[in-house]
Amino acid sequence: MTPPAQHDSFAPLQNTSFLRACMRQATDHTPVWLMRQAGRYLPEYRATRARAGSFMGLATNTDYATEVTLQPLERYPLDAAILFSDILTVPDAMGLGLSFAIGEGPRFARSVRDEAAVNALAVPDMDKLRYVFDAVTSIRHALNGRVPLIGFSGSPWTLACYMVEGAGSDDYRQVKTMMYARPDLMHRILAINADAVANYLNAQIEAGAQAVMIFDSWGGVLADANFQQFSLAYTARVLKQLKREHAGVVIPRIVFTKGGGLWLDEMGQLDCEVLGLDWTVNLARARAAVGGMPGGPGKALQGNIDPNVLFAGPQQIEAEVERTLRSFGTPHQAPADDPDRVGPTHIFNLGHGISQHTPPESVATLVDAVHAGSRRLRKT
Amino acid sequence: MTPPAQHDSFAPLQNTSFLRACMRQATDHTPVWLMRQAGRYLPEYRATRARAGSFMGLATNTDYATEVTLQPLERYPLDAAILFSDILTVPDAMGLGLSFAIGEGPRFARSVRDEAAVNALAVPDMDKLRYVFDAVTSIRHALNGRVPLIGFSGSPWTLACYMVEGAGSDDYRQVKTMMYARPDLMHRILAINADAVANYLNAQIEAGAQAVMIFDSWGGVLADANFQQFSLAYTARVLKQLKREHAGVVIPRIVFTKGGGLWLDEMGQLDCEVLGLDWTVNLARARAAVGGMPGGPGKALQGNIDPNVLFAGPQQIEAEVERTLRSFGTPHQAPADDPDRVGPTHIFNLGHGISQHTPPESVATLVDAVHAGSRRLRKT
Repeated sequence: MTPPAQHDSFAPLQNTSFLRACMRQATDHTPVWLMRQAGRYLPEYRATRARAGSFMGLATNTDYATEVTLQPLERYPLDAAILFSDILTVPDAMGLGLSFAIGEGPRFARSVRDEAAVNALAVPDMDKLRYVFDAVTSIRHALNGRVPLIGFSGSPWTLACYMVEGAGSDDYRQVKTMMYARPDLMHRILAINADAVANYLNAQIEAGAQAVMIFDSWGGVLADANFQQFSLAYTARVLKQLKREHAGVVIPRIVFTKGGGLWLDEMGQLDCEVLGLDWTVNLARARAAVGGMPGGPGKALQGNIDPNVLFAGPQQIEAEVERTLRSFGTPHQAPADDPDRVGPTHIFNLGHGISQHTPPESVATLVDAVHAGSRRLRKT
Repeated sequence: MTPPAQHDSFAPLQNTSFLRACMRQATDHTPVWLMRQAGRYLPEYRATRARAGSFMGLATNTDYATEVTLQPLERYPLDAAILFSDILTVPDAMGLGLSFAIGEGPRFARSVRDEAAVNALAVPDMDKLRYVFDAVTSIRHALNGRVPLIGFSGSPWTLACYMVEGAGSDDYRQVKTMMYARPDLMHRILAINADAVANYLNAQIEAGAQAVMIFDSWGGVLADANFQQFSLAYTARVLKQLKREHAGVVIPRIVFTKGGGLWLDEMGQLDCEVLGLDWTVNLARARAAVGGMPGGPGKALQGNIDPNVLFAGPQQIEAEVERTLRSFGTPHQAPADDPDRVGPTHIFNLGHGISQHTPPESVATLVDAVHAGSRRLRKT
C-alpha cells in the first residue's frame, strides 16, 4: 500500500498523517480531528450562520459551506477537514423536508409511519444533492492540499430513525414499533437508504472526498440481534457498493456506531478501514480485539475522548489526552526499510460531536496535547 | 442456602420463584416482573395519581403508595412487587426539593454546582424518609405473602447526575464538568450518597423489603475508567454496608447499570446476587461471563427485553419473549436430591422501565409468554 498519491486536478496533499493512519501506516504523530469541528462553538461559525439565515441555508450554499469547513483549520493544526453538512441530507432529497429550528435538532416536515409512506420512498436523484458535491469540490480547492477532506452520511438505520420519528427521540418508540410490528416495512426503508447512501458517498468521492465516514449515531439504541439485522447488515450493504479508490488513490471508509462497543467483534468483520469508538470503549481492549498485528489485517481505530473533558481546565484536558493516548498504547512504527508496512494505528477524535458550549481555547489545548503527547509516546 | 423462610410478623411467602432465582436456586418457571410496573400505562394508576394531585403526593402517602404498588398484581400474575417510589427520594431528603412537572422528568429546586453546595450536603436523617419505610411495611401487609417486595434506590452516581444537573440531561455536561474539573468535589458527593443510600436501603430492609435493587440508570454515560472510579466503586461502597439478611432471611441485592454491558466482567466482581441487563446485552454471552456454573459462584441475571417490543402485536411479543428466553438458555435445574443446589438463573424483565404509552394488554401477553415459554424450555 503506497501513501496516497495525487492523480487528480487538486493540489498535492501536504499532511498525509490522517490518510496514512486510516490505512494503518505509521505516522510521526497521532492525527487528530473532531467530529462537528466546524460548528456552533466557534464565534466565526455563528457569524456565518447568521448571514446564511438558517442551517440549511448554510449547508446548501457552496461558499458558506466552504467557509465554515475551513474555519477550525484556521484556528487549530487539525490533521483533517470534514465536509460541513448534515447526516440527514439524503432523506431530505427523498422529499421529507428537513429543517432545523433554533436551539432544536433536525425535523422532517413529513415522517414515514405507514405502508403508503414507505411505498412512496425511492433512492433520490443525486442531482438533488448537487449542492453537497459542489461543496466538496469547492472545499478541496480551498484546502489546497493542506489536509485531506472527509465526506460523510448517516447510516441507513440512523436515517430511518429520523425518517420514522420525524425528529430526534428519547425512546425511539415509533421506529422500534415499526421494526417490531412490521419488520418487512423497516427492511424496505433500510434497503432504499443503503442504496441511496452508497450513491451519495460515491458521488462525494467523485467530487473530491478523500475518505468517507458513515455515522451510525443511533445503532446503539438497538437490542442485541436487532443491531446486527437492522443496522450492521445495511451498513455492510453500503460498504459493498462504495468505490475503493478514485483517481488511483485508495479512499478509506470509516464506520462509527455510537454505543456500539458491545458489537466490536462483529464490526471488526466489516469491509472498511477504520472503526470509530465512543468513550465507553477501552482502547486497549479494542486494539486487542480488532486493531490487528503489524503486517496483518485489522482496523485503524478512531476516537474516543469524552467531549465533556473540554469543559475542564487545560491541565485536566492534557491529562485526559495523555490517558487516552496511553490507553491505545504506542501506535505501530514501521521499520525503516518498509515504511508502508501496516500495523495498529490510532486517529484521535472525540467519542461524539463537540458540544456547542465548548470554549474554543480548550480545543487548542487538546490538539496540541495530542500532537506533543503522541510524539513523546513514539519515543518511549 | 435454604429457601427464604419467614421469621417476621408478615404472612408466609407463597410465591418464592423470584427470591429463589435471585439466589440462583432452581424454579419451575422463569420469574418475571417489570421495572416501573406500577405506573402511568395503567388507567387505574392515573386515576389514583389524579386523586393524589402529584407524583410526590402519591409517593409520600402510605395508602396511595400501597394501592398503586398492588395495581399491576391485580392484572397480571407477576412474580414480584416493587415499592412505588422514585430513585431520587434520598437527595430530596437532603433538602434539594424534588418535584415532577406534568409530562416532564424529575427536577430539583436546588442543584449542587459549587464547593459551597457540596459542603452543605450530608447523609440525611432517615426520619425524613419515614414515608418510604411506612409504605414498605404497609405494602408487605397488603401483599399478604402473595409475592415478595423489592425495595430500591438510585445509585450514588445516578443521584449525583440529577443533583448536579438539577434535572435530566442529554449530555450530562454539568455533572461531567464537575467530575473532570473538580474530581475531589465529585468524590465527596458520591461518598455521601453511598452512605445515605446504604442507610436508606437498610431501613427499607428493616421495614420489610425482601430484596433491594440499585438503579445505576446513568452509569452508562461515563467513559471507560471513569465508570469504574465514579460509579462502580460507590455502588460497591453501598453494597459493603448492606444487611445480608433480616429476620433470618437472606436479602438479595440487584445492581442494574443501564448501558453497562461493556463492564460486565467488572460488575461480576460486585458483592451482590443479581445483575440487571439492558437489551443491548447478549444473554448467552452474559451468562457465560458472569452466570457461573452449577454448584459454583456466579450472578443471577435479570432482564432484558426492549420495552418497545410491547408496542407490537401479540404474536411478535410472544416471539421476542421466546427469543429472549432461548438467548439465556435453559436455566439451572437442581437435582432432586439437592433442590437448593445453585446454578445460572434468569429473572425476566424489561431492559428499562416500561413506557407510559404501553397498551396494558401487551403486558398480559408478555407475562403469560414468559411463564408458558419458560416451563416449556425446562422440558427440552
